[in-house]
Order: sequence, then C-alpha cells, then structure tokens
Amino acid sequence: MSSMPKRPKFDGNIDGSASLNEEESEALELIDACQNEIDALNEKASEEILKVEQKYNKLRKPCYEKRSELVKRVPNFWVTSFINHPQVSGILDEEEEECLHALNKLEVEEFEDIKSGYRINFHFDENPYFENKVLTKEFHLNSAAASENGSDWPASTSTPINWKEGKNLLKQLLTKPYGNKKKRNSEYKTFFDWFSDNTDPVNDEIAELIKDDLWPNPLQYYLVPDIEVEPEDEEDDDNEEETFEDEDGEDGEGEDEDDDEDEDDK
Amino acid sequence: MSSMPKRPKFDGNIDGSASLNEEESEALELIDACQNEIDALNEKASEEILKVEQKYNKLRKPCYEKRSELVKRVPNFWVTSFINHPQVSGILDEEEEECLHALNKLEVEEFEDIKSGYRINFHFDENPYFENKVLTKEFHLNSAAASENGSDWPASTSTPINWKEGKNLLKQLLTKPYGNKKKRNSEYKTFFDWFSDNTDPVNDEIAELIKDDLWPNPLQYYLVPDIEVEPEDEEDDDNEEETFEDEDGEDGEGEDEDDDEDEDDK
Repeated sequence: MSSMPKRPKFDGNIDGSASLNEEESEALELIDACQNEIDALNEKASEEILKVEQKYNKLRKPCYEKRSELVKRVPNFWVTSFINHPQVSGILDEEEEECLHALNKLEVEEFEDIKSGYRINFHFDENPYFENKVLTKEFHLNSAAASENGSDWPASTSTPINWKEGKNLLKQLLTKPYGNKKKRNSEYKTFFDWFSDNTDPVNDEIAELIKDDLWPNPLQYYLVPDIEVEPEDEEDDDNEEETFEDEDGEDGEGEDEDDDEDEDDK
Repeated sequence: MSSMPKRPKFDGNIDGSASLNEEESEALELIDACQNEIDALNEKASEEILKVEQKYNKLRKPCYEKRSELVKRVPNFWVTSFINHPQVSGILDEEEEECLHALNKLEVEEFEDIKSGYRINFHFDENPYFENKVLTKEFHLNSAAASENGSDWPASTSTPINWKEGKNLLKQLLTKPYGNKKKRNSEYKTFFDWFSDNTDPVNDEIAELIKDDLWPNPLQYYLVPDIEVEPEDEEDDDNEEETFEDEDGEDGEGEDEDDDEDEDDK
C-alpha cells in the first residue's frame, strides 16, 4: 500500500475556476490562523499544567522532608522497603543488602522544569564498603532543557563509588544480556551494577520504580503483609494502603527477625 | 533471585528493648500521617490538572468549530489530509479514498472527564456508498468512569454502516493477522475495516493518530510539501508548521491534479 505523502489534490479543476481557488486559499489562510490559536492554547495549557506540577512539588517537599527525618528513627526502613518491593528486591544480592543497612535517607528530586529529568540521592551512614556519604544517580531526559545547558541527552550519570579495600561490590557480569531486547534490569543486575550503569538512561526500569513507586509511598512496602504477591504485577498501584498496625501491633516484638541474611533463595 | 516480598525486619532486637519498638512504632505512625498528606496532595494535583485540561478543551472548542466550518469551504480537505498522513494513508484503499471525498467534517470529542475516553465523528455528504450521515467510533478506556455508567471497558463501539446495494467496502480479510503480536493497523487494514473493528480498543494506533496528530493539526498534512518523508517516523511531531503559501501560492492552479486515482502502487 502507498504510504508516501502526496501533494494535495485540490480537485478545484472540477469547476476549473480561479475564483474557487481563491476562495479555498482564503479559507486555508483562516484555517492557518485557527491553527495558530489552537497551538497557542496548547502551549498555554502545557505551561499551566507544568505550574500545577511545580506547585505541588513544592507543597509535597516539606512532607517528604518530614518523612525523611521520621524514617531515620526506624532502623533499616529503606533496605526493608527495597527488600519488600517485588521488582527492586530482584537486584539486591546478599552483600548489597548488608551494605544497604547503611542507607539512612533516600531523596528523589525532579528538576525545576520537571520534564528535563530528576536525580536520586542515596545517603549513607559510615559503612565498611565505601567512603561516599551520598551516591547520586541523575537523569537528563528532555532534549530542550539538556541541550540548553550543554549536557548530552538522554543521559544518566552516577557518583563514582570510592570502594574500601577489597569491598568493591560491582559484578558487571550481565550489563548487556541481550542485544536489542528491552532490558529488564531487575532480572540481570545487582544494585550497584544498576547504579553504576549508564548505558540506557531512557529505559531505566529500576530508577523509574524508585521515583514513581517507592518514593511516593515506601511505607506500603516497608509494611507489606506476609502474603504472596505476584512478583511481576505492576498494575497494583491503586495502593490500598495497608496501615502499619497490621504489622506492628502490641505483639510486634514477636515479629522481629535476626539480622542474618536468610535470602538464600537467590 | 528472590522477588518475593518479605516481612519487615525491624532489627529492633539489636538492643532488644521494647522502648525502641515503641519509638519505631510512633515514627511509623507519623510516617503514615505524612503519607496521607502526600496522597491528599497528589489527589489535589490530579484534580487541578484535570481542570486545566477541561478548561483548555473548552477554550479550544470554538477554534475547532470555526475550523470545521472553514474546512467545508476546501473541497476534499479531510481526504487529502488522510492521504498525506504517513500512517493513516496506509489504510486507505482506492475505493475508500473515493468514498472519503464525501467526508465533510471530522470531530474528535474527549469525554468531559477526559481520561474515560473519546469519540471520533465522521460526517459525510450524501454518497454512493452508505446511508449514514455520521459514523462514530467511540472509545471507553478508563475503568472507573466506564464502570460507573455500567459499560464495559476497555471497549470501543462503532456505528453500524448502512451500505447501499453492492457498495459494501468491508474487506475483513486480515482482521487478526498474527496471534498475539502487536497489531499495526496501518499495515493490515483498510479504513472501514479499521472503523468497524472493535477487537482491540486499547491499542488502536489509527484512532490515536487521528486524535493526537491529525485532529490537532490537519493543515500540516493537507499542505505537506512534495518531498520524501520517512513513512514510519512517528517522532516528527515537533510540527514545524508549513505555511500553506508554500503550496498554494499565486501559481497554485498549476499544482492541481486530476481527480483520477493514481495510487496504483498499492
């Protein structure tokens, strides 16, 4: 079938008069003016929506900051939430889990114009694995904004990790498992390999899960009830928030577990 | 790797005191309160964005209506735009093209709440093919809104076509070309087969192109310059609007073509 564009066929020659074409020409000029009005309205709509998003980003910020402070009072909040997250848990190997006990604060910051990208800050306590206090993974996704400040796009960057002697946790075994098949990071990588890999910033499933799922509501994962959940189901974001009382009732102590790593089903 | 959720490991037993758990419990309660604040803000943000979209849908409406009236003064505006559209042209067979000369008005209407769906109205002049004045294809996509009014979702419906004797243009030869492979309507169907097929409302590429590409700016396709364009490229929506003067200048008459169907490259 033909899918090549063709010149407009005015069919004006049915009557052949120049006046018809002039009439058409005038109509087209007016249609063009209409289009300009529509385009202007579209642009204004985008701007207004962006402003709403920026406004709510600002309004949410103190809530997130308060939450960060509260989270510090709950040992292993983040590593527990990671372990309980059906997809993110898939990239945690045993030693990494150990290491992530030092993760005391997670931050997701969208850039001011939102569409151009975001960064994830992982704040760590002093730990036996690396020297860094903060590990940042940053995504530059929008062309316009990125090219304005001269950076490449799409692109991601991540803080180089200053591993302590003999403590480097990078595996980098399976960075590119299949040629052009869409990568599923959760199946092929470990956490620090994911963190350090910047080869495919656009399809970073793990980063998106952290930004859009864990960050907006980590409590639902921290407090996940002890039931089976389909690990591949990404549809369950109509978060019927489990209240933590289910897990942390009067007899909460009985639910404590040792700190040893019993995830040997990897 | 393990991707099963696990119970939270409080590690509270490092110091073993009940008071630590109480401290944690209190912190979790406050985190929960934070989450509620965040959820409430998210909901308000969604509502405000919806209102902006509704407002601009209303503001755009008179422009679109004015455009519809103007378009009626340009013979074959819509069929020409369809023919010049790289993907939509792929589902037009010769006789359908002939038939679509009677298409005098196209309308895309988003439902009031926007997310629940939309309809496309094709208005026709009296024509040799069917009796209908208007053919409507309607998409119900959002679960909540659709289930409220008792309709199935996702689902699409289309006006049954009252074909005139011997004029039925339906082919329905290749409705389901490959089992579960993502359908590319443009490769397998003709226009009226597309219109009448409601088997896969969620992935209706043609409907989305009409709604999101042709409807917002048909002029760019009506006035497409006579150059080669990559037919599969869907990235070209940064519409650098060609002004129609390029095509419809003083010597516009010289560009008229016959009405005969020269698309025998199908």
